[in-house]
Amino acid sequence: MSERLLLHEYAESGNCYKVRLTAALTGVRIDRQEYDIMKGETRTPYFLENVSANGRIPVLQAGDRFIPESNAACYFVAEGSHLIPTDPFDHADMLHWMFWEQYNHEPNIATLRFWMKWLGPDNLTDLQRLQMPAKRQAGNAALRLMDDHLKGREWFIGDEVSLADVCLFAYTHVAGDAQFDLKRYPQVVEWIERIKGHPHFLSMEA
Amino acid sequence: MSERLLLHEYAESGNCYKVRLTAALTGVRIDRQEYDIMKGETRTPYFLENVSANGRIPVLQAGDRFIPESNAACYFVAEGSHLIPTDPFDHADMLHWMFWEQYNHEPNIATLRFWMKWLGPDNLTDLQRLQMPAKRQAGNAALRLMDDHLKGREWFIGDEVSLADVCLFAYTHVAGDAQFDLKRYPQVVEWIERIKGHPHFLSMEA
Repeated sequence: MSERLLLHEYAESGNCYKVRLTAALTGVRIDRQEYDIMKGETRTPYFLENVSANGRIPVLQAGDRFIPESNAACYFVAEGSHLIPTDPFDHADMLHWMFWEQYNHEPNIATLRFWMKWLGPDNLTDLQRLQMPAKRQAGNAALRLMDDHLKGREWFIGDEVSLADVCLFAYTHVAGDAQFDLKRYPQVVEWIERIKGHPHFLSMEA
Repeated sequence: MSERLLLHEYAESGNCYKVRLTAALTGVRIDRQEYDIMKGETRTPYFLENVSANGRIPVLQAGDRFIPESNAACYFVAEGSHLIPTDPFDHADMLHWMFWEQYNHEPNIATLRFWMKWLGPDNLTDLQRLQMPAKRQAGNAALRLMDDHLKGREWFIGDEVSLADVCLFAYTHVAGDAQFDLKRYPQVVEWIERIKGHPHFLSMEA
């Protein structure tokens, strides 16, 4: 890739970490620019006008163009690499897990993590507090579905690590931050260790 | 495509309509099998075991394999067609809008449509009722963002219709069912008419 890649991010966000992990596993260099979401730095007029009208990170900048949405940014970084299968069915199956992650996993597990670890249980609104049991249940259902899928498999798609694994790993491996008990999902725990054992693995804190 | 394609669906779901519209615009034949989600027909042991463990429609069956998640199914149908740009940036930008649709648009506009038109305002739980104002606000923010993006553009990506337009069209053009006032978004209204004017357009009722 000839253009400079700059990740507009908040490092502790799993959605941002996904993009860094994708870059590490594919040997792509990305530079990083940090925004403090707790201080509203992604909702400034400058950010909304110049980086993303949606006011969220991550946004991947490629030259003078911008790609919001974590899984789309991961795809751009991994384009043409071993992380993206070329068989049309496997490719669509990879996208299935990536869309499933954003619809069924992230809004439950990542949102509870944010509420519990960043906002803090005492600072939640009544509406947030009322949504917690449903998010807890849906988050556990997501982990259960992953655990069942991984029975007899090493990776989510086919026989190799793909972007589906990377995108699912980001918030799954820190689900304990939201008080999900990963020990209940032994296949998921093994799969987490498998990813951590990749020779080019990069931790969230790196 | 040599395999038979069978769409497991509930026809009035915008997520299912997306797949039919993609097939119409690309000249791909798909057969259809209807499930009544109001009777729980996608949560039966048979469905969970054989079609999708996630218990949701649409699921696209290709031969004896299954692709859940509407936008992944659309991608499989449109693979290699004019609906998917080949330039890596445009391709990632298309995915950005498709992920954005599932995260920022569908959970607000489609969910309110389902609650208001299918469940009915009198049958909502307290938690659903309490979530309505936030979903109304987020749905309007999504439509506003689309309207702003479409200023000076005909399509979401580049100069041609793409899967981003198809996926966003599905629930946008019926947002009135959830009492969103599309007249407030004139660029969106023009874009809806542009899609309806496509020579191979297929309506939701077809």
